[in-house]
Amino acid sequence: MISTSAVDTYIQSNSGRFVDELKELCSFPSISNHGLEAIKPARDWIANRLSGFTDRVETFDEGGMPALYAEVKGAGRRKLLLYEHYDVQPVDPIDQWEADPFKAVEKDGRLVARGVADDKADVMARIHALEVLKHLGEIPATLRFLVEGEEEIGSKTFEKIAHKHADKLKADGCLWESGGFDSGDRPTIFFGVRGLLYIQLRVSLLAFDQHSGYASLYPSAAMYLIRALASLRDQDMNISIQGFYDDVVPPTEADRKMLAKIDPEVEDRKRLIGFDEMIRNPSHDKVIEQLLFTPTCNIAGVTTGYQGPGSKTVLPAEATAKLDFRLIPNQDPTDILSKLRRHLDGHGFEQVEILWSDGEKPVRSDPDSDIGKVMVESVRELHGEPVIWPFMQATGPMHPVVADLGIPTVMPVGVGRPENRIHAPNENIRVDDYLNTIRLMCRVWERFGAV
Amino acid sequence: MISTSAVDTYIQSNSGRFVDELKELCSFPSISNHGLEAIKPARDWIANRLSGFTDRVETFDEGGMPALYAEVKGAGRRKLLLYEHYDVQPVDPIDQWEADPFKAVEKDGRLVARGVADDKADVMARIHALEVLKHLGEIPATLRFLVEGEEEIGSKTFEKIAHKHADKLKADGCLWESGGFDSGDRPTIFFGVRGLLYIQLRVSLLAFDQHSGYASLYPSAAMYLIRALASLRDQDMNISIQGFYDDVVPPTEADRKMLAKIDPEVEDRKRLIGFDEMIRNPSHDKVIEQLLFTPTCNIAGVTTGYQGPGSKTVLPAEATAKLDFRLIPNQDPTDILSKLRRHLDGHGFEQVEILWSDGEKPVRSDPDSDIGKVMVESVRELHGEPVIWPFMQATGPMHPVVADLGIPTVMPVGVGRPENRIHAPNENIRVDDYLNTIRLMCRVWERFGAV
Repeated sequence: MISTSAVDTYIQSNSGRFVDELKELCSFPSISNHGLEAIKPARDWIANRLSGFTDRVETFDEGGMPALYAEVKGAGRRKLLLYEHYDVQPVDPIDQWEADPFKAVEKDGRLVARGVADDKADVMARIHALEVLKHLGEIPATLRFLVEGEEEIGSKTFEKIAHKHADKLKADGCLWESGGFDSGDRPTIFFGVRGLLYIQLRVSLLAFDQHSGYASLYPSAAMYLIRALASLRDQDMNISIQGFYDDVVPPTEADRKMLAKIDPEVEDRKRLIGFDEMIRNPSHDKVIEQLLFTPTCNIAGVTTGYQGPGSKTVLPAEATAKLDFRLIPNQDPTDILSKLRRHLDGHGFEQVEILWSDGEKPVRSDPDSDIGKVMVESVRELHGEPVIWPFMQATGPMHPVVADLGIPTVMPVGVGRPENRIHAPNENIRVDDYLNTIRLMCRVWERFGAV
Repeated sequence: MISTSAVDTYIQSNSGRFVDELKELCSFPSISNHGLEAIKPARDWIANRLSGFTDRVETFDEGGMPALYAEVKGAGRRKLLLYEHYDVQPVDPIDQWEADPFKAVEKDGRLVARGVADDKADVMARIHALEVLKHLGEIPATLRFLVEGEEEIGSKTFEKIAHKHADKLKADGCLWESGGFDSGDRPTIFFGVRGLLYIQLRVSLLAFDQHSGYASLYPSAAMYLIRALASLRDQDMNISIQGFYDDVVPPTEADRKMLAKIDPEVEDRKRLIGFDEMIRNPSHDKVIEQLLFTPTCNIAGVTTGYQGPGSKTVLPAEATAKLDFRLIPNQDPTDILSKLRRHLDGHGFEQVEILWSDGEKPVRSDPDSDIGKVMVESVRELHGEPVIWPFMQATGPMHPVVADLGIPTVMPVGVGRPENRIHAPNENIRVDDYLNTIRLMCRVWERFGAV
């Protein structure tokens, strides 16, 4: 085994270049929402980097945004699947960025750029870890890189990709994209994801916008949609869709024990995020349970009528909304979608169209798997005692890997921090966290491959 | 008196130039919503045109968008106030325009341009009528032009202007901006306007947008605002604000007789505007009463969260809405505003901020005034029997003129048609209607000044 001090020394003496290369990756505006042309340059750049370590870089294309695959043969018998994604979220509201979101700037020990936290730091750190171990000795386990291109738009073809290439993806464990630290600087490890149903709704009641003087006669698409949205839930996230909670698996006693060890960081959240009171005003010991085990019906966007400055007196012909539902095991996005349609029809909102939808299933993996235990030990060694989360509040296309391919999966400690502003303007990471992400990768691979 | 045939001949032989000059006026993007710099070029152009007929062109500036004033001495003893406005509505959604909204194109007998119907045709037609009569003989009555610059943003300083310059505006009658024809090609005359309360609402519950995974913990500004909006009215335009209807004066028997003569044009509206059913599904004889005598609470715009294509999973920190209330005599916008605030506070929506508001009072004038009778007779002569409306469904700053200055006021027959698309993309007029607007002006001025 390569000594951890040799690893640390190599990372330290190459840190400037490592950070520069991460910046270079962040310079690609790989917004999957903007289509294939937008993501290609980032994909090609990563493919080129990976090809420095292996002959086998492939593109998995099932009609969505293509994923990259590369295998690096290891000395040991174990195989490890490494999941990351190279696509990023859109940048709007662009005027709230302090600098160009695709010109990563280093300032006060931080890098600011769209995608730097979610998930380009992972992509790059794992390539850098590969370089470190290859330079210092040998790769301890066979590594199978799977770098997805459409995680931020719902991983539409990921299930297909996973099923079709099951043989190439087979592994004894999987490292998912990383989490990071809570606001008490405690390292956190996640063993699952929530699911997602994302939909766009539209109400169109008139052929074109009308002078608002006619509002006493002609129907309002805006009010129609608003009443439909208001019917879905209350301010306390109680969702009124019949059967919505049917398949929810409540937390077990073991879950509750795990959850009890997680600091809810209420005061830190309040200070940072600026809310007065959390939904349902949960007691301290119920905050994390509520965060994870409450499926959501979130209004991600509403557009209707006049959006500019000042006034325009218009009766809008059309109104649209984007909703996302975070689902928990064993809710199924397809089932929730049909229940939503039934709700709308049953409440007099037949004219609300569901324009399109995307879904991802929730899934949990066992914290007591080999890769789970290796992760906990490695994090403990590098960062101190980790906080274990049964699953995270966010979504990822983990279901096909865990449930269909049967690979035990864990989300390592990466660059995540409460102040990362992922999906928001001024997304950022700490440079130190980036270098530690490389270090942790080296340790986990060494430990997992040593068996 | 100048013969109507001389007038018609002059208009006919100058029609090409007249239309070109109207196009020129429409080339100025005088969107008052965009501020003073946006409207100045149109104002200067009109001032220059008016100065060709009088030495007295003045600017009335009370801190808003300035109005133009010009007096033309007439042969007779009567004075006539002419109200128009040179500002226009914004152009968005810009991608729905078939051509540049500020390059008026003549096509199939129509002119398409922002503001061509509302209200630049009036501005230009009255200047052209002045030219016609001046060329053929003398101006029969003293004309007092008042060309407002902020009608489309609520005429914030018009009341001040009217009060301060009451002496200059004094007149025996006032011609307001024109209406036009209903879908049965019947000329229509209006004797009043509805009032308006326009407000912008904001709910801001978080310091910045959050990853939507946190929607189970952090409050949703979008849902908060949506619930507040949903609480204001139902789909049938029944408004839930306590005391909202207190000052409404219901239609009198005379009103109902007037309303009974108005064709509700239900099938034409359906075909043109594409709705399935009108609000409350009124019987044929109640449509116009509902249109006019139902005050509204219209959602003119809602903005929150992600507006672009595809998906973004975000919990928006903020949500805003624009509302306009059409008011009828004797509702008062200031009173309605305070009742709205009380409603929000009383229904648990204290965190809905009213960012700003604008108001205009509703008003009615007497159809049996001298100017009213002259208008009815002149329209009958030129176009056939007119349809008389007690007031129109739209708003204008008529209240200070009618109620404070005591000037009987009427809205003539102009270029208005149901297919004008005022306030919407592809606003347009018929060229013939424009020339007839000039003809009507000449006749009304001659008839009114002949006393």
